[in-house]
Amino acid sequence: MRPVLDDSVRLTDEGVRILDRRVFPGRQEWVLARSAGEVATAIRGMVTQSSGPFYAGLAGLRLSARLHRGGPLATALTALADDGQLLTAARPTNNHVRDAVREVLAAVAAAGPGTPEELAELVEAETARLEAAYRGGSAELGRLTAGLLPDGARVLTHCWMDAYLIGLVQEASRAGRQYEWVVTETRPYLQGARLTAHTLAEMGQSLTLVTDSTAAAVLAGQSALGRVDALVTAADRVTMDGHVINKVGTLAHAVAATAFDVPFFALVLAPDPTAATASDVVIEERDGAEVLSTLGERTASPLVERGYYPAFDVTPPRFVRRIVTDRGVFEPTRVGEYHSISKELA
Amino acid sequence: MRPVLDDSVRLTDEGVRILDRRVFPGRQEWVLARSAGEVATAIRGMVTQSSGPFYAGLAGLRLSARLHRGGPLATALTALADDGQLLTAARPTNNHVRDAVREVLAAVAAAGPGTPEELAELVEAETARLEAAYRGGSAELGRLTAGLLPDGARVLTHCWMDAYLIGLVQEASRAGRQYEWVVTETRPYLQGARLTAHTLAEMGQSLTLVTDSTAAAVLAGQSALGRVDALVTAADRVTMDGHVINKVGTLAHAVAATAFDVPFFALVLAPDPTAATASDVVIEERDGAEVLSTLGERTASPLVERGYYPAFDVTPPRFVRRIVTDRGVFEPTRVGEYHSISKELA
Repeated sequence: MRPVLDDSVRLTDEGVRILDRRVFPGRQEWVLARSAGEVATAIRGMVTQSSGPFYAGLAGLRLSARLHRGGPLATALTALADDGQLLTAARPTNNHVRDAVREVLAAVAAAGPGTPEELAELVEAETARLEAAYRGGSAELGRLTAGLLPDGARVLTHCWMDAYLIGLVQEASRAGRQYEWVVTETRPYLQGARLTAHTLAEMGQSLTLVTDSTAAAVLAGQSALGRVDALVTAADRVTMDGHVINKVGTLAHAVAATAFDVPFFALVLAPDPTAATASDVVIEERDGAEVLSTLGERTASPLVERGYYPAFDVTPPRFVRRIVTDRGVFEPTRVGEYHSISKELA
Repeated sequence: MRPVLDDSVRLTDEGVRILDRRVFPGRQEWVLARSAGEVATAIRGMVTQSSGPFYAGLAGLRLSARLHRGGPLATALTALADDGQLLTAARPTNNHVRDAVREVLAAVAAAGPGTPEELAELVEAETARLEAAYRGGSAELGRLTAGLLPDGARVLTHCWMDAYLIGLVQEASRAGRQYEWVVTETRPYLQGARLTAHTLAEMGQSLTLVTDSTAAAVLAGQSALGRVDALVTAADRVTMDGHVINKVGTLAHAVAATAFDVPFFALVLAPDPTAATASDVVIEERDGAEVLSTLGERTASPLVERGYYPAFDVTPPRFVRRIVTDRGVFEPTRVGEYHSISKELA
C-alpha cells in the first residue's frame, strides 16, 4: 500500500493540490494553490513540510510555466525566475526547493527554449527528472541506512522523515529486515504522532509513540521498551563541517544518544556546499504562539503571553555518529568529501 | 497574591476538596473525596500531583480520624493505619505521602491517645505540623537556591515544582533577585504550560513557554532567548548516591545542560535513606494512551495503537551539579551526608 503522504502534492488543471499536513490524518483536506505564489504561501503556512515543499515547489514551477504558455516567451521566463524566487524564499532552512529552482533555471538557460510551449515542456521534463532523482536518492539513503541497522533493531525517530523514511522501510523490507519503531510525537505540530506514526502503521510497521521528553529515558535504556539500537532522523541541512540542522529536538535526542552510546544516523541527500558551517544556515523561527496551543486549541494557561518556537536546531558533529548521503555513509567531520566523490563511483 | 495552586487542597465538612489539576486553569473544578480511600483514588487519577498528594494525603489522614471520632478507639486506629496504606500506595515514586503517614502513625503510637477524639486532635496537630514543616522546608530550598542564582539569571524549569517553585520565587524576591523564566510545557499533562506558567504569571514573573524538545537548543545557547544560566527542577526522589528521580524529561534536560555546561540544580527536602540507589525506586508507568491525546482530545493518528508513558526518569549524578536540600546544598555524590547533619546545625 502506498502511504497517503507519499502522494500528497498533485498538479491538476485547477492548480497545485496540496494535502494539508497541519490537520492530517484527523482530517484529509487539500489546499488548492492557483499559482506558484500561492504554493509558496502554502509552504510558509506549513500546509506541507519535510519533503512536501520540494514536491510542491516542483509543481509550482510546472504550474508557472504552464500558466504562461499563451503569452510571450520573455514573460514566461521572467515569471519562472520570479516564481522560483518566491518558492525559494518561502522557508529558509531546508534547501531542497532552492536547489531545485536553481537546477530548473540552469536547465532552461542551457537549453534555450524557443517558445513558451517548449519552455513548459522543458520545465515539465526537468521537474520530473528532479523528482525521480529525489525519490531514487531517498531509496538509496534507505538502502544504506538499512545496512547500518540489523534485522530486529529498535529505532528511535523524531519528526517526519518523509521520503527518507518511506525509502528506509521499503529498502529494509527488501533486505528482509524488520524494525521496531519508537516515534517521538514532535511538538508543537505533532508530526511524529500524526505523520510518522500514521505512515509507519500504513506500512505495517510495529511502533510505539512517546512524548519528546521521554526519548532520553528510552535512549538511556530506562524504559520497558528495551534498549534502543539507533536514533535515526532526516536532516534539513548538513553543513560541510558536519553540523546537522533538523527539526528542533533533534539536538536533545542526539546529545542523549551520545551520552548513552546509542549511534545517531542523520540522513540527507547531500551536504550543502554553500554552508561551510552552522552560522551559514538561517534557523527559521516560527510564531511562538504555536507553543501555546495544540492543533489549534489553546492548551497553555491563558496567563501565558509568550511562547518561543525555533523550528530547527543545530546538532554539532560530536553528537552525530554517521551521516548517510546518496553517495555513501560519512563520519560527520568528513562529509565535505561528498562533493569530491563522483555520483557514478559512489 | 497567593497563587491558586498554593491552596488547592481543603478539608471541609463534606470531605477533602481537591482542585483538579488535570484541567486547571482551563477549568477550575474541585473533586470532592469523602474518604481517605477516595483521596487515594484522586491522587492515583492525577487530580493533583507534585506537592498536591502530600497536602491531600495529610487531609486524608485528618478526614480518616475525624470520620471515626464516634466509634471505638481501636476501630479508629485500624482505619487510620489502613487509610495510611491506601494513601501511600496511590502512587509509587514520590515518597512524601509515605513519610508523612509514617510520621503521623509514629506520633500516634508515641502519644497513645485514650479516645478517638484525642486521636483526631492528635492527627490534626501532627498533620498541621508536617504541612508547616513542608512549607518551611520549601521556603528554605527557595532561599538556598536563590543563593545559587544571581539577580537577572535566566532559569529553565521543567514540569511543576509546586511549593519549591513558590518558595524560590518568594525568597528570591525577598533577596531582591528577579529571574527570567523559560518553562517547558511538559507533555503529556502539560504541567509546565498550565501549572508552572500560570503560577509564575500570577506571581508577576517574566516567562517564555517552549516545547520540551526545544530545551536542549535553549541550553546550548542557540536560541534568541539568550544564554540560560541554570536548569532548576524539583526531584520526586533523590537516592543516597545522588540519582535524581523526577518528571520524565528531566534526564533529557540534565544531559543537555551538562553537555553545554549549564548547571543543573535539583531541589528536594531530603534524600531518601531507604533508597540507596536508583534500582531501589519504583518508576511509575502510567497509561500509554496519555501520549495519544492532549487534554482529553485525540491528537495522534487513529492508526496508532500504542503509547508509552513512564511518568519519571532517572538522572545519574554525573548530570547533576548540585542537590539543594533543607539542610544545605550538596554535590550529588555527597548528598548521603544529609542524614549525618543535624537539622539544627544546618
